Amino acid sequence: MASVFGGIEGGGTHSKAVLLSGDGKVLGEAVGPCTNHWLIGVDKCLETINEMVQKAKLAAGLDPNTPLRCLGMSLSGGEQKDAIDNLIAVMKERFPHLSEHYFITTDAIGAMATASDRGGVVLISGTGSNCKLVNPDGSQIGCGGWGHLMGDEGSAFWISHLAVKTVFDARDNLAAPPHDITHVRKAMEEYFQVSDLMGMLPHLYRDFKKSFFAGFCKKLAEGAEAGDALCRHVFAEAGRVLAKHVVAVLPAAQEPLISGELGVPILCVGSVWKSWSLLKPGFIEVLDKAAASDVLKGRFHGYSLLILQQSSALGGACLGAQRSGASVNMDYGANAKIFYQHSFGASQ
Amino acid sequence: MASVFGGIEGGGTHSKAVLLSGDGKVLGEAVGPCTNHWLIGVDKCLETINEMVQKAKLAAGLDPNTPLRCLGMSLSGGEQKDAIDNLIAVMKERFPHLSEHYFITTDAIGAMATASDRGGVVLISGTGSNCKLVNPDGSQIGCGGWGHLMGDEGSAFWISHLAVKTVFDARDNLAAPPHDITHVRKAMEEYFQVSDLMGMLPHLYRDFKKSFFAGFCKKLAEGAEAGDALCRHVFAEAGRVLAKHVVAVLPAAQEPLISGELGVPILCVGSVWKSWSLLKPGFIEVLDKAAASDVLKGRFHGYSLLILQQSSALGGACLGAQRSGASVNMDYGANAKIFYQHSFGASQ
Repeated sequence: MASVFGGIEGGGTHSKAVLLSGDGKVLGEAVGPCTNHWLIGVDKCLETINEMVQKAKLAAGLDPNTPLRCLGMSLSGGEQKDAIDNLIAVMKERFPHLSEHYFITTDAIGAMATASDRGGVVLISGTGSNCKLVNPDGSQIGCGGWGHLMGDEGSAFWISHLAVKTVFDARDNLAAPPHDITHVRKAMEEYFQVSDLMGMLPHLYRDFKKSFFAGFCKKLAEGAEAGDALCRHVFAEAGRVLAKHVVAVLPAAQEPLISGELGVPILCVGSVWKSWSLLKPGFIEVLDKAAASDVLKGRFHGYSLLILQQSSALGGACLGAQRSGASVNMDYGANAKIFYQHSFGASQ
Repeated sequence: MASVFGGIEGGGTHSKAVLLSGDGKVLGEAVGPCTNHWLIGVDKCLETINEMVQKAKLAAGLDPNTPLRCLGMSLSGGEQKDAIDNLIAVMKERFPHLSEHYFITTDAIGAMATASDRGGVVLISGTGSNCKLVNPDGSQIGCGGWGHLMGDEGSAFWISHLAVKTVFDARDNLAAPPHDITHVRKAMEEYFQVSDLMGMLPHLYRDFKKSFFAGFCKKLAEGAEAGDALCRHVFAEAGRVLAKHVVAVLPAAQEPLISGELGVPILCVGSVWKSWSLLKPGFIEVLDKAAASDVLKGRFHGYSLLILQQSSALGGACLGAQRSGASVNMDYGANAKIFYQHSFGASQ
């Protein structure tokens, strides 16, 4: 099975495993829950990855005891070198038949490698958030991705938190809400199954589950679609702060990334992008302003927002294969598509 | 031992037990670590309380197996009725010889009962923060106290977090710092024993300890005293948001509380108040503005800041005694003193 390459897309809520042949053909797939080791610990993370790969091997009709050539993992939380080295060491020891080689990168870099080998900006807004600019020469610069205690701005967690905090602050008379809180408060009581704000404390502390808390964002999206002003407000705020991540990394962009016909390619990853129409007002406003700013004026002509058509497990598998001295063919044109384009002075 | 009354001051970092006779004489004391059950769980909370009381009984020369008449606990995190009922039920079962009766209230109400039986505003800024207005008729209104994920504004945790977040945002180019970050970044690397921002992740997630994180505030106070502008800035911000808590509850104040000679009494509880001179600029600014606002204009003439001279365990013991049909004498004049007075139009 030396020519089978595995890829993992590891998220804060859902994960996926994909097995590929060298020519890029999908041989088998499997899904699983959260694999962010910061959230669930190393043991649970590795067990979940192992289970997904074994399932995918069976789905591909392969022998589960024959190692893959390489397993390339694109993990939310896969940034810190010491932590990654430890993950790989424990994995080799606990699951010796899983794979010959291992490679771990972040969810951002795995997504980028799925969409293109020429670089761009990756902007993740799922359970958490993160932004990475990858230059054509491979150099990277990041903004965010520090988790819910130190960032995650614009993520589903952050949107849920902003909405809940608005309700708390209104109740406390600490800050006037920008819009009526009635709908959000009711939706909160329903989603978290509480009858008052006190009831929220276990959800925030003893029983805190980031992915469950972030799940409230879906209810807010429904409220926004139905026209609730506060729901619409929190999404516009999310769009604004997500755009600020792009503005933060853009000054480091090399010329070919900026001067392309379609403007700066921004790969949008994560389920919050399903609500693009709600993010749009704040997102556009911030980038319009940035394009006119001293730092970027005359350099930044437009941008394209892209969305993956395939799991970023493919990018993980591709990068892993390269590291093990092999390669996997990628059909970039099929892996991502443009869903919005903006030229300063004109938009479509 | 039916005439011995126990009181607990339960904080997010330190706790204290005090045993009193009915005439208010201190018979014995003991100290312990965090007893916030939201942070450490019910079992650990109750074990710590039991240990402190047993130590205090021994210090008072009392038989540890003879129950107190009542144990009145003034606990950070002692707000939610279901949680309190559960704490008392488990305590009775696990430690049957501890006390005949039990009473739990918040750290805010315990502090208030230590300083006065005529009401006032309690403004806590320790590991966490909280604000309660207690009217002369006993009615209460609160602002904050929701913990570090949904509030704690102006607390040691919040100040530490604001400083660290400023360093992260500056590194990310996400937000320009209001002042040079060099000193705070160095102090952070030293306190948390890290060499880069990545190293902070375990402190924020896997190994998160609120009280340790909040402890960084002390280093920031030292930096502020030494003149560092960013350190001074985060304390002024804390002063600002703490004052906003007072502004939030003041509209609910009954006339006698506002019209007293010394203005509204604000009881300042928690170690962050040791840095009053650093909080002062922001604190005064917000209350000056509020006094001139439409809601409070002509009603709010001034305020006095008070600090406890005794543990708020005394107030807990006093309230507990009342609930059990007894009483403990309190020398309010000796229990709290004024450290700052402000009349609008003139300050001293």
